[in-house]
Amino acid sequence: MVPTVEWKNGAVRLLDQSRLPEAVEFIDCRDYQAVADAIRTLKVRGAPAIGVTAAMGVALGAQTVQTTHQVTFMQTVLKICDELAATRPTAVNLFWAIERMKRKMESLQGQPISSTKQILLAESQAILEEDITLCKTMGRHGARLIQDGQTVLTHCNAGSLATAGYGTALGVIRAAWEQGKKIKVIADETRPVLQGARLTAWELMQDQIPVTLITDNMAGSLMKQGKIQLCVVGADRIAANGDVANKIGTYSVAVLAKAHNIPFYVAAPYSTIDLKTKTGDDIPIEQRNALEVTTIHGSRPVAPKDVAVYNPAFDVTPAELITGIITERGVFKPGEVAVQFQSK
Amino acid sequence: MVPTVEWKNGAVRLLDQSRLPEAVEFIDCRDYQAVADAIRTLKVRGAPAIGVTAAMGVALGAQTVQTTHQVTFMQTVLKICDELAATRPTAVNLFWAIERMKRKMESLQGQPISSTKQILLAESQAILEEDITLCKTMGRHGARLIQDGQTVLTHCNAGSLATAGYGTALGVIRAAWEQGKKIKVIADETRPVLQGARLTAWELMQDQIPVTLITDNMAGSLMKQGKIQLCVVGADRIAANGDVANKIGTYSVAVLAKAHNIPFYVAAPYSTIDLKTKTGDDIPIEQRNALEVTTIHGSRPVAPKDVAVYNPAFDVTPAELITGIITERGVFKPGEVAVQFQSK
Repeated sequence: MVPTVEWKNGAVRLLDQSRLPEAVEFIDCRDYQAVADAIRTLKVRGAPAIGVTAAMGVALGAQTVQTTHQVTFMQTVLKICDELAATRPTAVNLFWAIERMKRKMESLQGQPISSTKQILLAESQAILEEDITLCKTMGRHGARLIQDGQTVLTHCNAGSLATAGYGTALGVIRAAWEQGKKIKVIADETRPVLQGARLTAWELMQDQIPVTLITDNMAGSLMKQGKIQLCVVGADRIAANGDVANKIGTYSVAVLAKAHNIPFYVAAPYSTIDLKTKTGDDIPIEQRNALEVTTIHGSRPVAPKDVAVYNPAFDVTPAELITGIITERGVFKPGEVAVQFQSK
Repeated sequence: MVPTVEWKNGAVRLLDQSRLPEAVEFIDCRDYQAVADAIRTLKVRGAPAIGVTAAMGVALGAQTVQTTHQVTFMQTVLKICDELAATRPTAVNLFWAIERMKRKMESLQGQPISSTKQILLAESQAILEEDITLCKTMGRHGARLIQDGQTVLTHCNAGSLATAGYGTALGVIRAAWEQGKKIKVIADETRPVLQGARLTAWELMQDQIPVTLITDNMAGSLMKQGKIQLCVVGADRIAANGDVANKIGTYSVAVLAKAHNIPFYVAAPYSTIDLKTKTGDDIPIEQRNALEVTTIHGSRPVAPKDVAVYNPAFDVTPAELITGIITERGVFKPGEVAVQFQSK
């Protein structure tokens, strides 16, 4: 499996997801600004992957701070944390990972700067490795929900490309497949950035898991024809009441699933659960550039040049539309998540 | 207003809709095969426009038949009719228009061929002019349903570009706007062929009617936020029980509208109502080329090359999700349409 993000030769190496599936290319970020830019421009995306990448960005930033003065060092790293936290507003894993790096640094007060740099790097590596482990555990819990022969719809990419590896929603699908269940996947292409067409389809084809690509507006018709038995998606933030922010279009899928009595699951690790956010109404929704809608990849126009555009990157699916949330601790009703993860 | 289709200098002149909005170009079809090809490749699309174009194709084909033998003439024209009817399977206006041309020709048995040719041309011109009149009448009936200040969502393009002029769903919007109602339009981009982005947005901007473009998967989220008060779409075929085949994605919009208590209307002329088709299950749904999904305009790839694709051009919205069908005779409940148009 191609690594989404890794530490390599003193740089943060990212698979450039904006180039997939046309090209498999890597970017070596040699300073934290390059990491921030890669997050902002969706070269790396997916809530858990953003978290891991930001943690590595903090570690990378820390390595490059040239000072022997400890307070200056810490203040500079905190500024780097702030810059990385400002890249995208919705995925809470970003803030969670940066917070964890900050706490680690603060726990090292009094230690030599060189040792702190090493430990921050190790912490970011630990976050990466934990992410893969969490996804595999989540996959095991979720795979039980999928029956042999079922067709599963997923939206956007919540796969190995959205995490450090294995994936959340696609981790569940992958685990079911690895258990020998003959399942099929329907991938929503997921306009405007086409993560489903470009990433999910590509990733599943790499693993030879049967996938059929559809445009987002076909999901309802397929459900009506009885061609979909289960939906599973990832999450960018889960509020304390179980409301879920995820890629734009997730809400429509959930409403359609409900209308057709199809179970609708969300798969996410604990770092996606934000108990400080009470309900979905409190989740900030990122509005992105109109060019994502009016052009393909910023070049080929598909709409009149000056047309008004609405381009929210996410929407909120209320808890009552969600059958269950698949986590590394098991599958819970949305309303139970807060209790389960109170002391995360 | 740019004419969608017209008879000009012995040719059928079509606005090449596959080039919009990048270029406003016309195609002069000098034989009926060119007309058939234009319908097949979506250079002209939209159920009523396809009907008008096919009628003109029959008239054009008739002009080019070189024989003095009446039976040969009629047989040749009937073969032309068959070829034109085979271009697309779902929009019933195509078959209706061709049937009308056939009936006209059959009524002319015994008349000189030269006169029959003239009358067929006049008949196709009459179909075109009727279409514009019908749309305006439909617009008047439908405009009453839209309140001042409302925001109306539409899917695909059921505008002047989908008809000989004025439009069905957009005719209703246009009529409300002409009455001075300050309305706004949300246009679904309508993947895969992007008729909403390329055609509806362009057409409304030409008329300075406020339009905001969204990707198809945003409609649900906007409805949840209370930003849409009414939906109106066109139709490719209306079955006797009121089920409606229309552009893929229409069904999802209808389910979402129902879930948010938003009225969902269909606007269509009598030629779209097919009493011989009992229910939506009997409507053949055209499956189109995977390249429409995996590339943009057949060139720029947006998905892995060999991915499996499902690409139905239409879906069926059951009568129970439709608030009303706007016709030139008034607005009816879907179940009333059969009675209203029994003797169309």
